[in-house]
Amino acid sequence: MAEIKYEIKEELGLISESAKGWKKELNLVSWNDKEPKYDLRDWAPGHEKMGKGITLSLEELRELKKLLNALDL
Amino acid sequence: MAEIKYEIKEELGLISESAKGWKKELNLVSWNDKEPKYDLRDWAPGHEKMGKGITLSLEELRELKKLLNALDL
Repeated sequence: MAEIKYEIKEELGLISESAKGWKKELNLVSWNDKEPKYDLRDWAPGHEKMGKGITLSLEELRELKKLLNALDL
Repeated sequence: MAEIKYEIKEELGLISESAKGWKKELNLVSWNDKEPKYDLRDWAPGHEKMGKGITLSLEELRELKKLLNALDL
């Protein structure tokens, strides 16, 4: 199986933590040595395994912020 | 292959659109008839195919909003 190479460049914040210790985090992650992208994802303790997630550009993150601030949460 | 049943209960907003028409959206989605969750995901035109994404509880969405507002984006 092909490996995905990644490096967490910056930990931006924790969104939640599950009973089993998985954490939903917002990070700046570089995939395969490319330019880092914002990444919202579940991680096992110590970042040993990654779960499902989504990567976002800075533009997309700004749109998301605008959207969340416009919603009545 | 097992089917995933889902229903988009509410379209909350568009984050971005790719050249091929895929859209990154925030929606309220019910999976397998369960209570709807917030869902940040890529969708093909007309919601015909779904791409990668992440589901969030209301609590998690609030945390994300707080986090984004604290960052210098």
